[in-house]
Amino acid sequence: MLEVKTYPAEVLHEFSIRLLALAGLPAADAELAADVLLAADLRGIDSHGVARLRGYVDALRTGQVNPAPELRVVRETLTTATVDGDNGLGLVVGPRANEMAMDKALDAGSGWVAVRNTNHFGIAGYYVLQALERDLVGWAMTNSSALVAPLFGVGRMLGTNPLAIAFPGHEEPPIVIDFATSAVSFGKIEIARRQGIPIPEGWAIDVRGRPATDPQAVYDGGALLPVGSTRELGGHKGYALAMMVDVLSGVLSGANWGPFAPAFAIEQQPAGSVGDGIGHFFGALRIDGFIDPDEFKRQVDHLVRTFRATPPAPGTGGPLIPGDPEREAEILRRRDGIPLIPPVAADLEALAAETGVPLG
Amino acid sequence: MLEVKTYPAEVLHEFSIRLLALAGLPAADAELAADVLLAADLRGIDSHGVARLRGYVDALRTGQVNPAPELRVVRETLTTATVDGDNGLGLVVGPRANEMAMDKALDAGSGWVAVRNTNHFGIAGYYVLQALERDLVGWAMTNSSALVAPLFGVGRMLGTNPLAIAFPGHEEPPIVIDFATSAVSFGKIEIARRQGIPIPEGWAIDVRGRPATDPQAVYDGGALLPVGSTRELGGHKGYALAMMVDVLSGVLSGANWGPFAPAFAIEQQPAGSVGDGIGHFFGALRIDGFIDPDEFKRQVDHLVRTFRATPPAPGTGGPLIPGDPEREAEILRRRDGIPLIPPVAADLEALAAETGVPLG
Repeated sequence: MLEVKTYPAEVLHEFSIRLLALAGLPAADAELAADVLLAADLRGIDSHGVARLRGYVDALRTGQVNPAPELRVVRETLTTATVDGDNGLGLVVGPRANEMAMDKALDAGSGWVAVRNTNHFGIAGYYVLQALERDLVGWAMTNSSALVAPLFGVGRMLGTNPLAIAFPGHEEPPIVIDFATSAVSFGKIEIARRQGIPIPEGWAIDVRGRPATDPQAVYDGGALLPVGSTRELGGHKGYALAMMVDVLSGVLSGANWGPFAPAFAIEQQPAGSVGDGIGHFFGALRIDGFIDPDEFKRQVDHLVRTFRATPPAPGTGGPLIPGDPEREAEILRRRDGIPLIPPVAADLEALAAETGVPLG
Repeated sequence: MLEVKTYPAEVLHEFSIRLLALAGLPAADAELAADVLLAADLRGIDSHGVARLRGYVDALRTGQVNPAPELRVVRETLTTATVDGDNGLGLVVGPRANEMAMDKALDAGSGWVAVRNTNHFGIAGYYVLQALERDLVGWAMTNSSALVAPLFGVGRMLGTNPLAIAFPGHEEPPIVIDFATSAVSFGKIEIARRQGIPIPEGWAIDVRGRPATDPQAVYDGGALLPVGSTRELGGHKGYALAMMVDVLSGVLSGANWGPFAPAFAIEQQPAGSVGDGIGHFFGALRIDGFIDPDEFKRQVDHLVRTFRATPPAPGTGGPLIPGDPEREAEILRRRDGIPLIPPVAADLEALAAETGVPLG
């Protein structure tokens, strides 16, 4: 086993900014995109941080993604809008569209922005943390290229379509909900395959729709299952939730949906393209449009403490609050640096050598 | 096994109206509440229809629920509001608050209404079907008395907290998503206990937090599990979703949340009450605030057909579209009548005898 290398957050952030700027992003956009990547690495969502930097840079260099998109509002009301992302990086288009949703909420109580013609936007949690800074309840969703089977179906028809929402506390940290609507992430399948161990039933099916316990079966034409896994355990609920995210992000915006959602950095959209790029959906609600914000935050504190005080199930440390693991990762990683697995570290070192941009 | 009796929809509807009016509801409210109950019975959600009529009537008669609530807007912006339901039936308060959310959406693109001091509101699907009639995307959520354990916790801390949202098609029927955030409904535990059969692992835990396969264990202080069931299968996702519904419905409105949500028709709120009654959360979005509604509906048709055409998993008929089972039940039940299990039929016959209101 190769050693995990650790990098200070600022080093990875600066490196990302310089690489993205070299690839054609305006300075402010490079910084914004690097912020989104860093949020993933800090919060322990390693699959969505600098591990993807090469993919982004390659897509920009080859013109698959537009480095200088001009966002266009294609339809708008006081509290809603659809934005065309001009095939920009989701890491740039997403934050700007989210900002529009937040501005609308500050003006009128709530704001909702659907986005089409965009690409992978990083972690959904980033967007709802931005809303927290303005004392708003933020929502973020995106569709993504298909990896997940519908319940009772064979094949990849839905993305892992994450959903995020956050609520501020007063003395307690916020509740930050951010999860993919598949039973597990593809990353867990990758890890099992690398380690040569079986995966639990309920994670995936093979190419013929049978429950898969060999992770290789997912690579060989299989698919992930939606959360709930089987009909008996509520797989129709995860499937419905993934479809909700797909319709709000993909259909409402005029993007591609379901099996047509293009993979990140793929030059061609799948045959039968039904819209432009992938889609996001952002929302924001003013807390004081419903209740005194101080009262709300005191109740959130009370709720958080009440759930933390629940007796633990055997063999566990008791309930967590959504967002706990990510916040704990961030504290450690800000202090100790961000550990990168050897292939990711090697990839960044290679990028540094290719471009002459130093890594640290 | 006793025979299932079948009643025409109009008979149950008329009976509900007369019973609720006798219990003190103004005529318009009795009809509204009966509509919501009938929607459940027609759509095959038997646990939420006339099976609960006695509970509602008793709660009204004893003054536990206010038969003539005066709804009060306690806070409002152009697109948001909090409504105090004056301890009315959720079947009356819910539709009126939902109407406010829809009116706001028609005015300003989106509308969001949180409700406190209310009671059980029937099926969440009713509300989003109302929105469809106005060409809106409707959202409905409610919290409810605690039955569900948080992941890694022992005890009942969350309601089954349903979430509903619907999207209209053009030639295809709408996508109607409506599900509880627990792995299964309590009704499935009841059925297994009555039949004396074990329940699958993943549905529930016992009083000590161990996986329960004896349905009796749930009655003996156990709890349902959130959808996803275990950490390995994504139980943290169902738990987070249940908490989202709880915060939006309970905390944002100033109602009770989590373990404090009062049971329907319980005279006293649990010790340590943190708000008024239970809470709902309604939302509505104008489709034409984002995209041409005809284009949206054509894409929904395409999506629906695409998912229906997915190859079926072994032993299944292929993927359903959310809302299919309920719509099929409604077609059959409008034609053939609504089947009631013997205890429910007997209960209605007894109500008829007690009140002199004929059942058919």
